[in-house]
This record gives sequence, structure tokens and C-alpha cells, in this order.
Amino acid sequence: MTATHEDWQRACVIEPPPGYTPNIGVLVAMLHYARLTTLQAVTGLNVEELDAIPPGFSNSIGMLLAHIAAVDRMYQRLSFENRDLDEGEMVLYGGAISFGQEGERVQGFPLEHYLSELEAAREGTLAELARRDDAWLASRLGVPGFDYPNHHWAWFHVMEDEVSHRGQIRILRKALAGQAG
Amino acid sequence: MTATHEDWQRACVIEPPPGYTPNIGVLVAMLHYARLTTLQAVTGLNVEELDAIPPGFSNSIGMLLAHIAAVDRMYQRLSFENRDLDEGEMVLYGGAISFGQEGERVQGFPLEHYLSELEAAREGTLAELARRDDAWLASRLGVPGFDYPNHHWAWFHVMEDEVSHRGQIRILRKALAGQAG
Repeated sequence: MTATHEDWQRACVIEPPPGYTPNIGVLVAMLHYARLTTLQAVTGLNVEELDAIPPGFSNSIGMLLAHIAAVDRMYQRLSFENRDLDEGEMVLYGGAISFGQEGERVQGFPLEHYLSELEAAREGTLAELARRDDAWLASRLGVPGFDYPNHHWAWFHVMEDEVSHRGQIRILRKALAGQAG
Repeated sequence: MTATHEDWQRACVIEPPPGYTPNIGVLVAMLHYARLTTLQAVTGLNVEELDAIPPGFSNSIGMLLAHIAAVDRMYQRLSFENRDLDEGEMVLYGGAISFGQEGERVQGFPLEHYLSELEAAREGTLAELARRDDAWLASRLGVPGFDYPNHHWAWFHVMEDEVSHRGQIRILRKALAGQAG
């Protein structure tokens, strides 16, 4: 499960993998690299560590992992289906997307739970991206009131939001280690 | 200086700006979007806020801003000049790159200092990227011992490292507001 030295070396070459058009493929390579760094940042955490919110912080690492997966699901709707999440999906993902503002906070799960949800969400993204092309990627979202970004931004944003929270996870984990030490 | 609503709408379209080859241009659009979010995250901070390290954190916002600019400078050497920083450059940027491990920590400066260094560093990056093409971007770095990444990864990484630290800046700023409140 852990990335090898060779996995990292390969991930440090951004180029379209087979099965995607060139610009989509570059994004897929970036999403892949970002995901490796997220997985590295959370390796070996237990439930208590995943749920902890050190003083000065607002979210736990588990909450951030659930958020990353839920953002993938949300942009699938926005980008592939031209719509926002429906009510049923808001029940499922609203808490994770809004960090507990529009639904329940996510807690109490082991790492495997978050990892399998991250993987399931991403699998759906990659399957849909493989069906599309660079002309689509360059075109604008079809969501009413949210039609100025293009699909290229949407999937770039999913990646950069993950990276932003991975940065937070790194210092959350440091803070936890400091408390323990 | 502050980005307008129109600036944000434009930044949410990832497409190559004029003056760059297509793949380089897409990266430039991503670097631009990331930078807008960094600038937004630090708007209006004073010297005390830039220097503060709340309990549980290791770095100040000012330190992270200096790091972001220094990483730009470091990858200019790695990617455009096929070499690491020299001794003189390590004196200038080593502290910022290593968060004070290999040089002095950065502190005591007003926001304008960090913003002008961010802009100066980025200007050098964009000028050099404009002189190169997508075949170069796809090729490997020429730095001994660090020759497995390609240039595409190098500049993607500069962007994703900025985004990671911007994520940290956001929660640092929240922690500061919590302390003040």
C-alpha cells in the first residue's frame, strides 16, 4: 500500500498517462502526485489521532480527509452532470464538504475508512475524465450561477484544495506529536 | 492591489495566457490562480501578525511567505540553470527555504516586504518560462542526483508547495484571530 521510491520517482514526471487526452492526462498526473503526498501525510494514524483537534485548530485530520473525498464527489456533479449536489447527496457529503456547518462532522473512523472513501471517489473521477477530451476540459461549467470557471479549473481546483488541506494535515500531525512529546 | 471579482472570474479559467507555449501556459495560469489565493490569505496582516507563532505551530505567516518566494528562486536555479543554489544564494535564501534550519528565520518585516519579494521572484520565473517550450517542459532536470523529475513537475511542485503553505497560512490566521478574540 505504501508508495515505493520508484512510485515517487515516477510521480515526479508530470506527463499524460495512457487513456487520457493530453491536457486531461496532465491533470490526472497532478491529481496522482497530490494524492501520494496526502497518503504519505496520514500513514499510520490511529482513530484517536484522526479525531484530535489540537488547541488553535478547527478541524481534525479525519475531517480533512473526509472533506477531500467529498470535494471530489461534489465536482463530479458540477463538472460531469452540470448540477449541484441533490438533497440525498447533501445528507451524505454536506457535513464533510462544509466541515460540519451543513451536516455532521466526520469522526470516529479508522484510517482505512477514509482511504477507501478517497479511493472510491477518485475512481469515479478518473473513469469520467477518461471518457472526455481536451475540448471539453477547456469549456465552461454548465451549472447555473457557477458558469464562469472551465472544467480545467474545476479539476485543478480539486487537486489544489487537496494540497491545501494536506499542508494543514502536516502541521496538525506535527502539533499532535508536540502534544504527545 | 486587491484582486477584483473580475480578476477571480478570469483566474477560474485555466488556459494558456499569450506568450507561452500551451503546457507552460497552463502551468502559468495555475501559478497565477495559486498566487491570488495566497495574496487573499494575507491581506491586511501587520508585522506582529506576520511574526506570530501560535502555540502548536512551528512557523509564522511571514516565514511561510518568505519560503514561498525562496522556493521560486531555488527552482529557477534547478530548472533554468541545471544547478543547486550556490553559497551566496544559500546565505540569501537558505533560511527561508529550510524554515530557519540552514540560515536565519525570516521575521520583523512588513507585508509589503514579502509581497515585493514574491513578485520579484515570480517575475524571474515567468520571464524564463516565456523563453522555453513544451518539449523542454517535458524533459528531465539536468541536476546531478536530482535528474528524475521533469521540468513540468518542477513548476507544478512550486505551485503545489505554495498552495500547501497557503493552506497552512489560512489556519494560522484563524488561530491568531482565535487568540485575539
